[in-house]
Amino acid sequence: MNDLFLRACRGERAERVPVWLMRQAGRYLPEYRAVRERADFLTVCKTPELAAEVTLQPVRILGVDAAILFADILLPLEAMGAELRFTPGDGPSFPRPVRRREEIRDLRVPEVEESLGYVLAALRLVRRELGGAVPLIGFGGTPWTLAAYLVEGGGSQHFSHLLAWSYGDPAGLAELLDLAARTSRAYLAAQVDAGAQAIQLFDTWGGLLDAERWRALALPPLLHVVEGLRGRVPLIYYVNGGAHLLPVLRDLPVEVLGVDWRLPLDQVRSLVGPEKVLQGNLDPAALLGPPSEIESRVAAMLRATGGERHVANLGHGILPTTPVENARAFVQAVRRFAPESR
Amino acid sequence: MNDLFLRACRGERAERVPVWLMRQAGRYLPEYRAVRERADFLTVCKTPELAAEVTLQPVRILGVDAAILFADILLPLEAMGAELRFTPGDGPSFPRPVRRREEIRDLRVPEVEESLGYVLAALRLVRRELGGAVPLIGFGGTPWTLAAYLVEGGGSQHFSHLLAWSYGDPAGLAELLDLAARTSRAYLAAQVDAGAQAIQLFDTWGGLLDAERWRALALPPLLHVVEGLRGRVPLIYYVNGGAHLLPVLRDLPVEVLGVDWRLPLDQVRSLVGPEKVLQGNLDPAALLGPPSEIESRVAAMLRATGGERHVANLGHGILPTTPVENARAFVQAVRRFAPESR
Repeated sequence: MNDLFLRACRGERAERVPVWLMRQAGRYLPEYRAVRERADFLTVCKTPELAAEVTLQPVRILGVDAAILFADILLPLEAMGAELRFTPGDGPSFPRPVRRREEIRDLRVPEVEESLGYVLAALRLVRRELGGAVPLIGFGGTPWTLAAYLVEGGGSQHFSHLLAWSYGDPAGLAELLDLAARTSRAYLAAQVDAGAQAIQLFDTWGGLLDAERWRALALPPLLHVVEGLRGRVPLIYYVNGGAHLLPVLRDLPVEVLGVDWRLPLDQVRSLVGPEKVLQGNLDPAALLGPPSEIESRVAAMLRATGGERHVANLGHGILPTTPVENARAFVQAVRRFAPESR
Repeated sequence: MNDLFLRACRGERAERVPVWLMRQAGRYLPEYRAVRERADFLTVCKTPELAAEVTLQPVRILGVDAAILFADILLPLEAMGAELRFTPGDGPSFPRPVRRREEIRDLRVPEVEESLGYVLAALRLVRRELGGAVPLIGFGGTPWTLAAYLVEGGGSQHFSHLLAWSYGDPAGLAELLDLAARTSRAYLAAQVDAGAQAIQLFDTWGGLLDAERWRALALPPLLHVVEGLRGRVPLIYYVNGGAHLLPVLRDLPVEVLGVDWRLPLDQVRSLVGPEKVLQGNLDPAALLGPPSEIESRVAAMLRATGGERHVANLGHGILPTTPVENARAFVQAVRRFAPESR
């Protein structure tokens, strides 16, 4: 029964810093690749037994302090009525992107149990199989980041369709964001009902916006989601490339702020104030270097927080080329360091 | 004879804020597309008459205060011995990326007039055709950014080969960076000899690094380039996604700091100190919105600097989907605003 992660999220003092890795269920694990030889990405997502299996792999193999459900942030967009394709090698795409107000009409707030029940079933199954060994994290994209993918039709270099819409017809884009917000609120509440003990909100593309536009465009729908979950479980807001947003994020009503590797955590702390628990932030590419280097960088990261109000993690998802022994070295370095430093 | 841009770069008081646009010679212009119907990208780069023609188009069409030579930052890598391909739609690629110390041996510091003489010829031609109407900017990538493309073999989402090398064998990567630095130093000095009146250094991928690693990896080769040019012409260092690097860039010995749109220029100013001239920083996507919106955003940008020590520009290259009238509205808004505000 290891609840270190949940205690740290609530800002309680714990005997050591908990650790998990974004995308810890993934291609760097031979055991994951073995599952994927039997089933494609969407099939794994939609088959609770397979999703549960890969969710549990890193808990067993790495000894992390939390499990995070294997799923994709784009699944609720499919449930909203958008056709979603995963092409091997190319990643996800929406063949019919949504770029005008009229096109929003084809979308709806889905009935979650009906259209995303497989996620809920996987959560229930993982909770049962974990038997309390470590907490289980659910997650979703923020409305802004969900809209970013749907408007572009997938990933993008410049997100020019999204941004053009944001400048040309902000009220129209706000309708799409509102729909994404209502969907996410229902979806994530259902994840909590199904057993998720914390929720991470991924704002992968929030950093495209300056602080003023982030506050105008991304924050209102995000607050709608946050308000539907607050007080139930700890909330983690993660933003990539968002160093310029930190002073604004200080006031975001979530317990935990996840950040990338670009700013050391002592500087992040000075920008977001004393309250937020910080999650992060080793450069995932550091796990491609030698273990001795990983250890010294973990030590620097933990010194930057003093182990206080800190959940150790990477600053972005683990890279598929990461050697498993290096991921393990990362976890072990966190576990080893913390007790001595307190 | 409009030397507003050069005076602003030197920090002299000028009667209004000069303005140009990154990638102002490009696909958003029908006149550029007409040239590209006759010749592919590399042919335009390597044919001085065509390069000169597209370089001059935005001066005539938009009325910008500076010309920037049409070229590609990857050309010196080809001159170093790397095979470079431009595939329509896919952008540039290096079929044989350089990822290990041994592979550096196939590269050399090129003799510039011999291997990049077409760039120098284009510069001379543009200077002659401009007849002093506006200054001409030369440019190159920073060693870090050049190495990023060469190691990955083109653009990349995570730059994991580059970063793996930086963690696994930093001394090996430093050899490649040194080679890129010596090449850039010679190449850019030759650009100045050929008539470039300012040099912009593009550090497109500098923002991948935290400040400590930027200082350790990217700065030494950059300083080698800067030291070869200092005092000859004004130097502009541009970084994308580098808000977290600004306190370090305060001490970089260049006259002008170009930044993206993520931080308002008054905040940039407070981080980099009073000396640097700032270049930027309207969100290029703002030019996809209505002209009235462009005008109010330009006004906000100019209020943030008070028109002091400022070269107006976008925060990144102009998007190919930008309507020409919106690019013109941007330029006109800068020209109109400035006199009243001083």
